[in-house]
Amino acid sequence: MCAQYCISFADVEKAHINIRDFIHLTPMLTSSILNQLTGRNLFFKCEQFQKTGSFKIRGALNAIRNLIPATSEEKPKAVVTHSSGNHGQALAYAAKLEGIPAYIVVPQTAPNCKKLAIQAYGASIVYSEQSDESRENVTKRIMEETEGIMVHASQEPAVIAGQGTVAMEVLDQVPLVDALVVPVGGGGMVAGIAITVKALRPSVKVYAAEPLNADDCYQSKLKGELTPNPYPPETIADGVKSSIGLNTWPIIRDLVDDVFTVTENEIKYATQLVWERMKLLIEPTAGVGVAAVLSQHFQTVSSEVKNICIVLSGGNVDITSLTWVKQAERPAPYQSLSV
Amino acid sequence: MCAQYCISFADVEKAHINIRDFIHLTPMLTSSILNQLTGRNLFFKCEQFQKTGSFKIRGALNAIRNLIPATSEEKPKAVVTHSSGNHGQALAYAAKLEGIPAYIVVPQTAPNCKKLAIQAYGASIVYSEQSDESRENVTKRIMEETEGIMVHASQEPAVIAGQGTVAMEVLDQVPLVDALVVPVGGGGMVAGIAITVKALRPSVKVYAAEPLNADDCYQSKLKGELTPNPYPPETIADGVKSSIGLNTWPIIRDLVDDVFTVTENEIKYATQLVWERMKLLIEPTAGVGVAAVLSQHFQTVSSEVKNICIVLSGGNVDITSLTWVKQAERPAPYQSLSV
Repeated sequence: MCAQYCISFADVEKAHINIRDFIHLTPMLTSSILNQLTGRNLFFKCEQFQKTGSFKIRGALNAIRNLIPATSEEKPKAVVTHSSGNHGQALAYAAKLEGIPAYIVVPQTAPNCKKLAIQAYGASIVYSEQSDESRENVTKRIMEETEGIMVHASQEPAVIAGQGTVAMEVLDQVPLVDALVVPVGGGGMVAGIAITVKALRPSVKVYAAEPLNADDCYQSKLKGELTPNPYPPETIADGVKSSIGLNTWPIIRDLVDDVFTVTENEIKYATQLVWERMKLLIEPTAGVGVAAVLSQHFQTVSSEVKNICIVLSGGNVDITSLTWVKQAERPAPYQSLSV
Repeated sequence: MCAQYCISFADVEKAHINIRDFIHLTPMLTSSILNQLTGRNLFFKCEQFQKTGSFKIRGALNAIRNLIPATSEEKPKAVVTHSSGNHGQALAYAAKLEGIPAYIVVPQTAPNCKKLAIQAYGASIVYSEQSDESRENVTKRIMEETEGIMVHASQEPAVIAGQGTVAMEVLDQVPLVDALVVPVGGGGMVAGIAITVKALRPSVKVYAAEPLNADDCYQSKLKGELTPNPYPPETIADGVKSSIGLNTWPIIRDLVDDVFTVTENEIKYATQLVWERMKLLIEPTAGVGVAAVLSQHFQTVSSEVKNICIVLSGGNVDITSLTWVKQAERPAPYQSLSV
């Protein structure tokens, strides 16, 4: 398997040892109403409770700890990535934990709250234009200037191995699980999970869940070749806008059992359902997996696939977009807090 | 204690046996950021995950099960209450569980989502005008017409005993707890908790938390006599608008150690903090306890009061008031679901 793919299960096991003392073993929750609605036993892996509010810390921290040799004097000078989302926050946090400067390349148009979150973890923000070209150029320049090492959000093997640790916990927490449902953007998490599940429990299904508006994973599986989104997709699930890539595609091609696409309305409805019924503040990207299991297409999945774990990928919602919350001024004792 | 107050700890113990098979033993969560902010070890008792989305099911179910004699033919004909909030939903659910018709008196002006929630649990809604007089008159009429039994939201002794079961769980889940912080409206929960804590672990403090705009509990303790809110209070914490009453006041007077009042902005900020940092969808009423512990007044509490349990009372937020969620239409398979 090592030769075939960019990581093997042994890398996930190493990642688990690398990071487990620094992250949460997130809880698994259930909901009788969602069981009723779907006719299955659902288990929700709550990565919105994870450090930095998403699973991304697993991969980021594993990558950074892999970069550090036994003697601490030889630490890398810096780490660099481009991401205005959860990976940016996670890399910032992981770098701070290890005392390494982090530079996050962000389009100037990114929402203020995301920039603030990255800065709150002590990383430096570097602005690019919105085009892919500008982003690549700025990233390259910063890597040269800082002698920094790039940690890609989804294609870096250490990141994929780190995300795979989710599955090690799931198989332990729900021994009788029949399937895992995982939102897919760049595919780092679903690839890491597929490597792990097919190594430890090959009969367990791994399903990817994707917005119809960003269905490169579905199209790639359909055509049997890597087929990125032709243009920047528009979806409320902002964590899965990126396309799968050269490292994640072979794993997804061979080891992911099926891909379920969902509409924007299905994502919103599923997210709302989790908020309202489970009282869990998930981000719409996490709602993608829930929407997949609620979808009509999913009803074609055999009823023997009974115990299903949905990975709730994160909870970093822009709260200031909510109505009454806008009225809240920060009381004096917390002026300095970056919330 | 039995003679002195409307309930004794033995009633809470009985309530625990009465209801424990029908409710969730809700989890206790922690947050490193909130510990940092307050300099204490905080434990959050998550009653927003409770059946019907709030602690109120404990009291409602205990009251209803107390009404049922050994032979099921002698069930009461109906139960009645006035509440457009969590108690109304809880009584509706508890009554359905026991197969008893429930009539909930609600002001015509109550938000639609609350009426829908009550109806979804199978109860009948009866409208009154907004005045106390109309509410009392309608309730009395319905009790006569249905031969129904009134279950008051906060002054019914079986309700107070039911809410006290929260404290039995807390003392078990956090053996080293130094204090509990409890939002107070009618005072059913804080009274039940105070009876329990002072019976089992008298050195543990019980603090009430209250909006400054509805500070009847604070005023009553200050003056040493029951002092209801002089006019209907305006506060975002809609679950604690009611005043403490004849049954809860003596318990609060003697057994609650202190009352902390918080401003509307403090409530909003605390609620937002829990949403954003803990990813828990609590209602503003649950934010009142968090706001109390974050308040400057609370800094006067001895640093020996280190391990503090905040009861997150519920999570029934009107989600439709949020911006993008409004755009979500319900997909066809769930048209019949009352969400």
